[in-house]
Amino acid sequence: MGFGADNLPYGVFSRPGEAPRVGVRYGDHVLDLAPALHDEVFSAPSLNPFMARGRAAWHDTRTLIQNKLTGDASVTERHLIPLEQVRLHMPFEVADYVDFYCSIDHAANIGSIFRPGTEPLQPNWRHLPVGYHGRAGTVVVSGTPVRRPHGQLGPGAFGPCAKLDIEAELGFVVGVPTTPGSPPGAFEEHVFGVTLVNDWSARDIQSWEYVPLGPFLAKSFATSVSPWVTPLEALPRIPGRAQDPEPAEYLRRQGDWGLDITLDVLLNGEVVSRPPYSSMYWTPDQMFAHMTVNGSWLRTGDLFASGTISGPSPGERGSLIELTWNGSDPLKLASGETRSFLEDGDTVTIRATAGDLTLGEVTGTIV
Amino acid sequence: MGFGADNLPYGVFSRPGEAPRVGVRYGDHVLDLAPALHDEVFSAPSLNPFMARGRAAWHDTRTLIQNKLTGDASVTERHLIPLEQVRLHMPFEVADYVDFYCSIDHAANIGSIFRPGTEPLQPNWRHLPVGYHGRAGTVVVSGTPVRRPHGQLGPGAFGPCAKLDIEAELGFVVGVPTTPGSPPGAFEEHVFGVTLVNDWSARDIQSWEYVPLGPFLAKSFATSVSPWVTPLEALPRIPGRAQDPEPAEYLRRQGDWGLDITLDVLLNGEVVSRPPYSSMYWTPDQMFAHMTVNGSWLRTGDLFASGTISGPSPGERGSLIELTWNGSDPLKLASGETRSFLEDGDTVTIRATAGDLTLGEVTGTIV
Repeated sequence: MGFGADNLPYGVFSRPGEAPRVGVRYGDHVLDLAPALHDEVFSAPSLNPFMARGRAAWHDTRTLIQNKLTGDASVTERHLIPLEQVRLHMPFEVADYVDFYCSIDHAANIGSIFRPGTEPLQPNWRHLPVGYHGRAGTVVVSGTPVRRPHGQLGPGAFGPCAKLDIEAELGFVVGVPTTPGSPPGAFEEHVFGVTLVNDWSARDIQSWEYVPLGPFLAKSFATSVSPWVTPLEALPRIPGRAQDPEPAEYLRRQGDWGLDITLDVLLNGEVVSRPPYSSMYWTPDQMFAHMTVNGSWLRTGDLFASGTISGPSPGERGSLIELTWNGSDPLKLASGETRSFLEDGDTVTIRATAGDLTLGEVTGTIV
Repeated sequence: MGFGADNLPYGVFSRPGEAPRVGVRYGDHVLDLAPALHDEVFSAPSLNPFMARGRAAWHDTRTLIQNKLTGDASVTERHLIPLEQVRLHMPFEVADYVDFYCSIDHAANIGSIFRPGTEPLQPNWRHLPVGYHGRAGTVVVSGTPVRRPHGQLGPGAFGPCAKLDIEAELGFVVGVPTTPGSPPGAFEEHVFGVTLVNDWSARDIQSWEYVPLGPFLAKSFATSVSPWVTPLEALPRIPGRAQDPEPAEYLRRQGDWGLDITLDVLLNGEVVSRPPYSSMYWTPDQMFAHMTVNGSWLRTGDLFASGTISGPSPGERGSLIELTWNGSDPLKLASGETRSFLEDGDTVTIRATAGDLTLGEVTGTIV
């Protein structure tokens, strides 16, 4: 079923009339952690206080939950609430949100679309994980409707975005802050877990606004995340994709932080792409090292995302601009309709599996 | 003296062994607001709860403080603490930090430096206030030492930044959130006040990393703000600089939001520039309208800054890259030294006056 005792993602839930609090998903239930574990840290309306406790506490808590769930059923059954009775909330308070650009296939596709006939990768791309800051205040939980943004589309042109797109990404959530002025230490001591991310993008607003300071309003209207944060500890790890040239010393990989995760992108219920996270060029330990090498530091609740995940095959592209080659080759849906970009009423859902595990899905409908 | 009853900037202070709380600067003293006004909102370690109360409360509180300060002295003297007895803290919790690029003279200088012989302004520049998201978590209060960042300076090149620069800016602090999905309403109903900003910048890191997603590590290591937030209500307003072409309808000015503020930039105590805020092309009501036109929303504690303030004259440039034309024409200091960019041990202080008022200064030393 994908949500067994080897998975146990964390989220924030409430029942009608009750305050939001932390739970763990187990099958089609939520385990109400504060009473089940007698620990008030789970009464908070976000994961942040628990995430700040650190890796040893994360591990011990996970073991405790596993023992309870597989032990005396009567102990936990009182605290298992059917999913259909709960509402899911934003699982953590976002401190800063950084979005990277770590897929070489995505970067090459974008380069080929906008600069045909030239080298598709920018000169810096193979030397550092390119990234930028996004808007933390408009990160919303899965299910939140997404309003089509309005904006400038060119000189004298203003109106609704006509090239509304998705970006299927994986997000990493920081639990333990790094210390200002000190080397950040090991990735897995600071990063608590992962969430699926849909970084909604207005391609026409973006192409007019982004020179020279990068995307701004094209991305700031909404970024959706899954309601469940899967602990790093639960995820199957594989070696990262080969890199050429050898990265700078501070970017040397800290271990096997490639992740064996495959995403499904569904448009109105139909799978239109299956992006493989294993194809990413820059691994999350490298993003983590890059963000802090200049002396910057991370806080509990920082979210950094991989950027669009695209594999080498056409059916593995994580954005519509790639899947339709900027609208020139529209998707043909099973319904008989076609899509170049998103239309009002469209629903996009991103799901993922990691070996036997299922990640929480992220979904949104355009209104 | 500049800090009279017509000024009254807010900050967060503490005495040794006491908790940080909100005060107002009056001359060389801090008025301890919680006991003086019998209002617990000022016991918070940040301005955010007070700023969230809204414009009517801001005005009433200001009037109340003015009446107390000019009324029976014995009432307030008990709550006036000499500045030299207090430590000043970060005055507000930063939600999101946005940095704009609103000075036409600055944008033209940068264009002339990097693209000599071509039109210095990018095609979009006169149509919208270009902006991007910065790092909220590394906004620090004046006086915090600034560590010289390390980073990639080009392919295979890693080391300390050799082109460490300043950007003299004015920052606007949001008090009242805007409502998701609703027009944002009037600028002055949401924006509480202003702070001086030094957006430290690593020019060599920036030039290698910023294509295509904008500045990232070049700016994220530190952004300094003054400890005092001057209420919008206190500031002298003037018409904004003429704009051509006429901006899009959503960017039409809401009133006279040009601000008659002149900055002094001091390098090791010597004034090296006097940037005039009155020369800015895009006014803060326009930045405010732009940030929300796509459906995004603002939160209490959001900080948006003007971008480097540069006037039309060489002595009015707000960054070293402009003052020294990217190092080709070093500054000659009174000490006999020269500077292209900042050296270790250098102290930069930005001061400002607005008519008879003095703004809180922002200072930092490179370590």
